[in-house]
Amino acid sequence: MRLPVSTWPDIEAWLTKSKTIVIPIGSFEQHGPNGFIGTDALCPEIIANHAESLAPDDILIGPTFAVGCAQHHLGFPGTVTLRPSTMIASMVDWTESLMRHGFERLYWLNGHGGNIATIEAAFSEIHARRSFDPRGADNRPGLTLKRRDWWDFRDVMSTVNQLYPTGHGSHATASEVSVTYWGYPERERSSTKMTPKIAPTGTIGDAVQYRRDFPDGRIGSDPTQSNIEDGGKIVAVAAKCVLEEVARFSA
Amino acid sequence: MRLPVSTWPDIEAWLTKSKTIVIPIGSFEQHGPNGFIGTDALCPEIIANHAESLAPDDILIGPTFAVGCAQHHLGFPGTVTLRPSTMIASMVDWTESLMRHGFERLYWLNGHGGNIATIEAAFSEIHARRSFDPRGADNRPGLTLKRRDWWDFRDVMSTVNQLYPTGHGSHATASEVSVTYWGYPERERSSTKMTPKIAPTGTIGDAVQYRRDFPDGRIGSDPTQSNIEDGGKIVAVAAKCVLEEVARFSA
Amino acid sequence: MRLPVSTWPDIEAWLTKSKTIVIPIGSFEQHGPNGFIGTDALCPEIIANHAESLAPDDILIGPTFAVGCAQHHLGFPGTVTLRPSTMIASMVDWTESLMRHGFERLYWLNGHGGNIATIEAAFSEIHARRSFDPRGADNRPGLTLKRRDWWDFRDVMSTVNQLYPTGHGSHATASEVSVTYWGYPERERSSTKMTPKIAPTGTIGDAVQYRRDFPDGRIGSDPTQSNIEDGGKIVAVAAKCVLEEVARFSA
Amino acid sequence: MRLPVSTWPDIEAWLTKSKTIVIPIGSFEQHGPNGFIGTDALCPEIIANHAESLAPDDILIGPTFAVGCAQHHLGFPGTVTLRPSTMIASMVDWTESLMRHGFERLYWLNGHGGNIATIEAAFSEIHARRSFDPRGADNRPGLTLKRRDWWDFRDVMSTVNQLYPTGHGSHATASEVSVTYWGYPERERSSTKMTPKIAPTGTIGDAVQYRRDFPDGRIGSDPTQSNIEDGGKIVAVAAKCVLEEVARFSA
Amino acid sequence: MRLPVSTWPDIEAWLTKSKTIVIPIGSFEQHGPNGFIGTDALCPEIIANHAESLAPDDILIGPTFAVGCAQHHLGFPGTVTLRPSTMIASMVDWTESLMRHGFERLYWLNGHGGNIATIEAAFSEIHARRSFDPRGADNRPGLTLKRRDWWDFRDVMSTVNQLYPTGHGSHATASEVSVTYWGYPERERSSTKMTPKIAPTGTIGDAVQYRRDFPDGRIGSDPTQSNIEDGGKIVAVAAKCVLEEVARFSA
Amino acid sequence: MRLPVSTWPDIEAWLTKSKTIVIPIGSFEQHGPNGFIGTDALCPEIIANHAESLAPDDILIGPTFAVGCAQHHLGFPGTVTLRPSTMIASMVDWTESLMRHGFERLYWLNGHGGNIATIEAAFSEIHARRSFDPRGADNRPGLTLKRRDWWDFRDVMSTVNQLYPTGHGSHATASEVSVTYWGYPERERSSTKMTPKIAPTGTIGDAVQYRRDFPDGRIGSDPTQSNIEDGGKIVAVAAKCVLEEVARFSA
Repeated sequence: MRLPVSTWPDIEAWLTKSKTIVIPIGSFEQHGPNGFIGTDALCPEIIANHAESLAPDDILIGPTFAVGCAQHHLGFPGTVTLRPSTMIASMVDWTESLMRHGFERLYWLNGHGGNIATIEAAFSEIHARRSFDPRGADNRPGLTLKRRDWWDFRDVMSTVNQLYPTGHGSHATASEVSVTYWGYPERERSSTKMTPKIAPTGTIGDAVQYRRDFPDGRIGSDPTQSNIEDGGKIVAVAAKCVLEEVARFSA
Repeated sequence: MRLPVSTWPDIEAWLTKSKTIVIPIGSFEQHGPNGFIGTDALCPEIIANHAESLAPDDILIGPTFAVGCAQHHLGFPGTVTLRPSTMIASMVDWTESLMRHGFERLYWLNGHGGNIATIEAAFSEIHARRSFDPRGADNRPGLTLKRRDWWDFRDVMSTVNQLYPTGHGSHATASEVSVTYWGYPERERSSTKMTPKIAPTGTIGDAVQYRRDFPDGRIGSDPTQSNIEDGGKIVAVAAKCVLEEVARFSA
Repeated sequence: MRLPVSTWPDIEAWLTKSKTIVIPIGSFEQHGPNGFIGTDALCPEIIANHAESLAPDDILIGPTFAVGCAQHHLGFPGTVTLRPSTMIASMVDWTESLMRHGFERLYWLNGHGGNIATIEAAFSEIHARRSFDPRGADNRPGLTLKRRDWWDFRDVMSTVNQLYPTGHGSHATASEVSVTYWGYPERERSSTKMTPKIAPTGTIGDAVQYRRDFPDGRIGSDPTQSNIEDGGKIVAVAAKCVLEEVARFSA
Repeated sequence: MRLPVSTWPDIEAWLTKSKTIVIPIGSFEQHGPNGFIGTDALCPEIIANHAESLAPDDILIGPTFAVGCAQHHLGFPGTVTLRPSTMIASMVDWTESLMRHGFERLYWLNGHGGNIATIEAAFSEIHARRSFDPRGADNRPGLTLKRRDWWDFRDVMSTVNQLYPTGHGSHATASEVSVTYWGYPERERSSTKMTPKIAPTGTIGDAVQYRRDFPDGRIGSDPTQSNIEDGGKIVAVAAKCVLEEVARFSA
Repeated sequence: MRLPVSTWPDIEAWLTKSKTIVIPIGSFEQHGPNGFIGTDALCPEIIANHAESLAPDDILIGPTFAVGCAQHHLGFPGTVTLRPSTMIASMVDWTESLMRHGFERLYWLNGHGGNIATIEAAFSEIHARRSFDPRGADNRPGLTLKRRDWWDFRDVMSTVNQLYPTGHGSHATASEVSVTYWGYPERERSSTKMTPKIAPTGTIGDAVQYRRDFPDGRIGSDPTQSNIEDGGKIVAVAAKCVLEEVARFSA
Repeated sequence: MRLPVSTWPDIEAWLTKSKTIVIPIGSFEQHGPNGFIGTDALCPEIIANHAESLAPDDILIGPTFAVGCAQHHLGFPGTVTLRPSTMIASMVDWTESLMRHGFERLYWLNGHGGNIATIEAAFSEIHARRSFDPRGADNRPGLTLKRRDWWDFRDVMSTVNQLYPTGHGSHATASEVSVTYWGYPERERSSTKMTPKIAPTGTIGDAVQYRRDFPDGRIGSDPTQSNIEDGGKIVAVAAKCVLEEVARFSA
């Protein structure tokens, strides 16, 4: 089931059989010369929706938390970021909303490495409210918060390693660009040229430093390798991993 | 151009000819027995994207600000809300991100009446930062923030009045449900039954009071009238209005 | 009864018969060449206190929330503003204080158009706390928050239209200046000259833009028409409207 | 000059000769059986306005910051408080507003002992913004923030000690009640009975503890001694002290 | 007992006999040419730990709240400060943590005059949470918050006056420097020269003003008088005072 | 050099040759039956101070950021935590203080796994301020923020693996307890008994869940193996690693 295009009676019915919801969470930030700005939000959304299409009765996909932590990309037009403190406040509000309805297991399917720290900090902020106030702890509903980076399943990694033995990289990666091409085939940009073929690597600070060190936005990647077909393979594997893990998570 | 599926060089090029961006802004909240929870986010997104498909070189559509102010709907499962203070902080971050790139004219295409106050408060918060600090005011970039509720164009209203002379309502309206059916025809729910045919009206407070006074979530509406074809008509009119107004706004 | 000059036993007694309080809410901002900076706070205070003098046993007037949202007037000396986020936090604290005592119906008599959005956002922030936490909803006290702009009663509007068929305007209006002259007759400034007679109109952004577009601070008004006698008429009508509406609101 | 009933050109003219403004700052909280809830806001306002009436060209009185830190009085109906963090945010906004116009010397005439800590913390918060950022320190305007508790002038204290050798107390004091009776003679309550004649003393914690330890709200005082005539004497002395100190402060 | 080097079962056992904890609270800021930057944190820590060594079963020393309000010293390298609003938030978190375990009496042993206002504001912020919500007040645990400035015991003051009849001063005082020399004898700096011998006095604003008016950081003091032996005397007296007062506080 | 026991002229001199500072950062939380509550703050402080004692001219140790993110341990008495949002605000203030003096390279030596996410989120918050405002980016000072978990050096890990081939664990580890015993030998608790010998493992949520799943506080560890001698070995290796890495970091 997809929450955005479901009705409230649908969700009320879902809650009679499951307390779990999957929330794609991403970022809006430059992804090099041929990657979409929305890449990090689109990837988990594409994968989650594909999983849902395979097993619509088994998984509930919530709204996508689309804009995350991308301050280091602000040197490139189109990037939109939240401050970490704003992102934490937003995730608190989302979570309290869902807890209000009876959800107890939130599975955040993450599409952005730069979100990891703030997502985990938000989890801690949310749990802290409960930890400070133990009243009624025996009777109150449970709460389990889990983050999964979509690229981090073992099967996804082995697929990606096979497809891109070199030049996969760590930002504007060959795999994530492929996933978005599969999701939006009419927007595919495979003919874009890049120099150098494989982008440099380095450390990340603020936006001025980032653009100076990574002039076209990529880190360590060669996304000229990206294509629709690869994207489809990756999505298929990732969606299967998500379904399996969410089933275990809900048990 | 659609920012989510564009690259940063695309946006850099756009900024050489325009300082304007359109941001759909909505809410995730119950919309009665046959309306989608995402209705208020989907409507402005559908309209904006349709406008863009008519004139892709003339308009830039940013990411959708999908979750807004919906505390009063929390009594219905699936609703997700930000506190107004969180929404203001988020809109500040979005706006500062876009100003960083050179955008000076932000046109927020709004899909939710309950967002109006907080959007305007956020505008005031954003302007206040500039107003407190007048240093360099002569040289600094301009900033114009505009909110447009998509249903509030004269042509849209006359279309809607023709289609739904009775039972249009003010929440889970016949028109907004139609727009989403046109956008997601495979999810259409026109056969849902409702009693009473036209929902009651009243005032809004907190979530407990809302669910007590509006038991199925609708206010004053009969969305059993909604259908795909009507949605297409409304979208066509609204998209045209948006294109015209954005052209004037950017001039 | 006027809270500022009442004792706590007075308020304790009031609460045995009513859960309603009226709070004048305004702004401190320039009001053109002959309007007082405190105009927007003084008008609702004058009207509320006049209503109280007519029926001291029927209405309780709280302290005036005097400084509101006026960032756009900061280009004119004397203007004092809160950021919207600060104003929301303050209104939350006022409301929680009053709820602590048993007040359940807060009627905010507003004197400033620029406050409207933030007042409504604050209402939403306050209700959100209750909406997130439905525990004990059946037993907990009610809470109704209402904003009334004093110029917006039908009888007030018709009086004003009769008095000022032209040049009433939308900032530093002829009517609000008259109300303050009636309240503070020794400070009357009716002989001030202005050019042009009727001020320009336009849109509002930050403080630098405002002072550029509205050089003497007025928008669309000719407050040289203002006088003490008119002020008295307007106050009489508005006070009567407030008494009637508050009686209905409390019922 | 009184800012609330002045125009912006008045303030612009004032700033050509002075950078100083006096801001009465108080609290809305119970003041025992015969003291007004607004006592702590009214006293500094009455004294400041009286000072202004003696020397209208020499002193500028700003709006009254009326609601302060009164959490410990919340057990008594009518008390309204800000959290200290809200009060700090509000004082930051007021100060930045006034600095925007060129004020460099803010003299806060305080009417509430419970405000002292938070006022000083707010001063530190305001200065911190400048201290973190020393850029342009040589050219930027100065900023001096001063708090004066009206009862703390030597001449005021000796007057009060003469008038009330016993039972002056520390909350709902004989002197502050007299000041408000002089300011609002038609509201005088001198015939109220209290038991015991002199209220107990003790330490202050939260609101529940306060009402338990101080059942009628007073601390150490016998305000049955209060009267209009005494109030007039105290105001005369205090106003003179304020005028003298503000003259030195502005030099 | 010292909490930092105790185990949780130790604290669990402590709570069966006492609800009191002592928290040293200080600041990290310049202390003139021969005073340590950590002086204000080290002094209460040294005194508290010495008290504990005299009566380890009678007192529990918590972690040191080491960084406080020092914005005015930022003109001198090494100073670290919190904004008052951050310090309040931190003290709220510390206090709620300790209340979670059953502590009801927190005794903050303060080492910095510049902390006083913010500590008291934090107490008010903490109590406000309880005051706004009186539910269950009869059954809920008590909470008493007390601040003690270590130099403010009568016996400490008389010792200090004997040791330093002139040049004790108010910042980088002779006594506090001696206390730290006793605590860290290997770091003693008694041979440092200073001009003038006794530093100037004045008022405090922001960091730029402070360094201009107090060029070597001291206010009114001659800490060339400081020495290890004096420090030992002061610590002995202060530790005794703390033990006595904490015993009364816990009773 | 150790900042807490240095003077401001010492730091001024240091800044003429280095822009680097090392800040131990930890947590105050239960560490099982024989580990100190301060373990996570003490370990990086002990290691940093030992490094400084080996090469006092080559490294500057700042104050210890002692209380971090420990909400999950609040079920055990003595634990003190900051909310992540408070910790971020505090780290922002510390960093801005140090940047004010000219520090450009902050090396946070971390002692707590639960801090990692929030430290990284704070780095992002700090950089965001610079990224939003690129004005003067060419001339402004650099800023490099680095986190190092002390146990994560390769040489430290191999030492620890040799010493504790089994039962090292992930909370209240054998190694960290040994480090604190070396630092505070008089507090050593090696004879404490525990059952089971090696603690269980699992996932972490809120405080109630944590204490239920890990009844004596340990995760996966057998700290009965801990002893002073092992602690000395670990500290020696870790201090050497810190010195080497800080030298590279500063280059």
